[in-house]
Amino acid sequence: MKKRLGMNCNYNAVATRLALFAILLSAFLMQAQSDPLPAWNDGPAKQAIVNLVRATTDPSSPTFVPIDRRFATFDQDGTTWVEHPMYTQMVFAFDRVVQLAPQHPEWKTTEPFKSVIAGDKAAMAKLTAKDLEAVFVATHTGMSVEAFQQMAQDWLATAKDPRWHRPYTELIYEPMLEVMKYLRANGYKTYIVTGGGQDFVRTYSEPVYGVAPDKVIGSAVATQYSYNADGQGILMRPPKLLLDNNFSGKPEDIYLFIGQHPQAAFGNSTGDQQMLEYTQAGPGAHLMMIVLHDDAQREYAYGPADGLPPSEIGTFTQALYDEAKAKDWTVISMKHDWKQIFSWQK
Amino acid sequence: MKKRLGMNCNYNAVATRLALFAILLSAFLMQAQSDPLPAWNDGPAKQAIVNLVRATTDPSSPTFVPIDRRFATFDQDGTTWVEHPMYTQMVFAFDRVVQLAPQHPEWKTTEPFKSVIAGDKAAMAKLTAKDLEAVFVATHTGMSVEAFQQMAQDWLATAKDPRWHRPYTELIYEPMLEVMKYLRANGYKTYIVTGGGQDFVRTYSEPVYGVAPDKVIGSAVATQYSYNADGQGILMRPPKLLLDNNFSGKPEDIYLFIGQHPQAAFGNSTGDQQMLEYTQAGPGAHLMMIVLHDDAQREYAYGPADGLPPSEIGTFTQALYDEAKAKDWTVISMKHDWKQIFSWQK
Repeated sequence: MKKRLGMNCNYNAVATRLALFAILLSAFLMQAQSDPLPAWNDGPAKQAIVNLVRATTDPSSPTFVPIDRRFATFDQDGTTWVEHPMYTQMVFAFDRVVQLAPQHPEWKTTEPFKSVIAGDKAAMAKLTAKDLEAVFVATHTGMSVEAFQQMAQDWLATAKDPRWHRPYTELIYEPMLEVMKYLRANGYKTYIVTGGGQDFVRTYSEPVYGVAPDKVIGSAVATQYSYNADGQGILMRPPKLLLDNNFSGKPEDIYLFIGQHPQAAFGNSTGDQQMLEYTQAGPGAHLMMIVLHDDAQREYAYGPADGLPPSEIGTFTQALYDEAKAKDWTVISMKHDWKQIFSWQK
Repeated sequence: MKKRLGMNCNYNAVATRLALFAILLSAFLMQAQSDPLPAWNDGPAKQAIVNLVRATTDPSSPTFVPIDRRFATFDQDGTTWVEHPMYTQMVFAFDRVVQLAPQHPEWKTTEPFKSVIAGDKAAMAKLTAKDLEAVFVATHTGMSVEAFQQMAQDWLATAKDPRWHRPYTELIYEPMLEVMKYLRANGYKTYIVTGGGQDFVRTYSEPVYGVAPDKVIGSAVATQYSYNADGQGILMRPPKLLLDNNFSGKPEDIYLFIGQHPQAAFGNSTGDQQMLEYTQAGPGAHLMMIVLHDDAQREYAYGPADGLPPSEIGTFTQALYDEAKAKDWTVISMKHDWKQIFSWQK
């Protein structure tokens, strides 16, 4: 009798718990079934991403990868943010020239600074690699690493792009942010692997991409250890390039930083070609994706596809397109694969 | 009455749960109170480590550091494993010369190879930096990164040190392994930052130190992206040094890889001096430790302390000792601070 009552007296508690459990379970299932990539339209591109995650994270998969060996690498310009009409870091460099001009009266009569200060767009478009190097040396070197990062941060806080009149750090492709988050939720380490400057990107990579500075690989000067007036160790930025993180530099630097092939790589130009090849040469499952800018209305249109004007920047050549097709890389059509491009653009 | 019975009838269940809870709680408390550094004797060195963890991980601490910004860097030779009587990687290089000799008949009459092949210790001790460079180029370059790692792995699997007749990967300081584990358990990323070869260390860093290859910073050749016979992307090791990860190279490369000052750094020689200075120059709390080899019985004795012979290798100079004292770095006495040196040595 006591036992019977005992069962009875637990009834309410058990019922309450069952109800709670049911609520939690359904919330969990909804969570599990909810789409991790809502800014993507259904199709082969979206499916390829989901397939890679399944192939590398399901312990029963023959291509399962232990959690601390999962790596995905993302180019930046044209892959995770807008690169038109000019690379953002180039805009920063030109703005710095104008800002520094009062301290350099000789620039008024010296190229390439003269054209930049005058805002002569036609002349600026014709600057040679050597001219641009002079601009970079003048604006990106000669200070401590902290001073450089502060300059970049200050600029990014106020500069706005000419088309949408928004900070450059808002010109991020929402679908790519989703991929990064989805991969990280599945144990991947997500790296930015940019031809741009490592230290420039590090100033915003964590708030913008959720990528901490130790996961940013980029072109980099050979910093120089020195001492400040207090005798404290500081790092200066001399005008000496250590890493040119473009083309072959990408796989070389990926190996330097992470010591293995990534399982997934995302790019959009010939500067990413070797990174995608190197990713494909790795063991097990892999995913190589390139972004085709074919949406003039919501972003820009340029590249090798029918009816698109040829690339002027971020060269997605016909040869790269052909290699992608031949090697089963996935071409992402911004127009067709992306439901939404920017978080603020419905 | 029903209610009363209801309380009664739950009594046994509640009692059982309370007992279980008490057991779990005491296990938890024992765990929490158990010493994370049992191979360390109580003293200022051990306390300094515990203090850093408290200062950087307690959210109420004014020097609290967010979890993804916690970094600790460890020199290897003489700091986490034995460096006497010769750096392990040097032994590997000399063994490789002997192994490769049949393919290089000219080495029999050419220095520095002649002395190495003859096993002439006196001559080998006098090899110049240029001689050693020739040995490294002959043994460490000209192959793919995978082929090099395989060679290093094969050698480490069979080579034994001359004193204890154990694999070199067993000559690891147990107290340092404990520090690494303790720091990682507290959210720190632990890096090996070695003057030795990055790729050499990467072959064993994960099983030996729990440090994955992406957290090994070392001297490194500028790998070269190329294609194998199947047209796949591979990385070759040309005879070109990219990173000389010694002295000033350590803070420079730490910044390149992680983009900030570490909170803790461990070294044992002048090659680590700048890394310790750079760590101290960072914001908030920090810990700089240097290992003094003063235990001839259990390991080796050399360095600036009273009665110790001067360093022949891993130069812990009097000047470094003085800087450590002046700047409040913690000198670890192997003899007095370490209860146990190797895991197999009771």
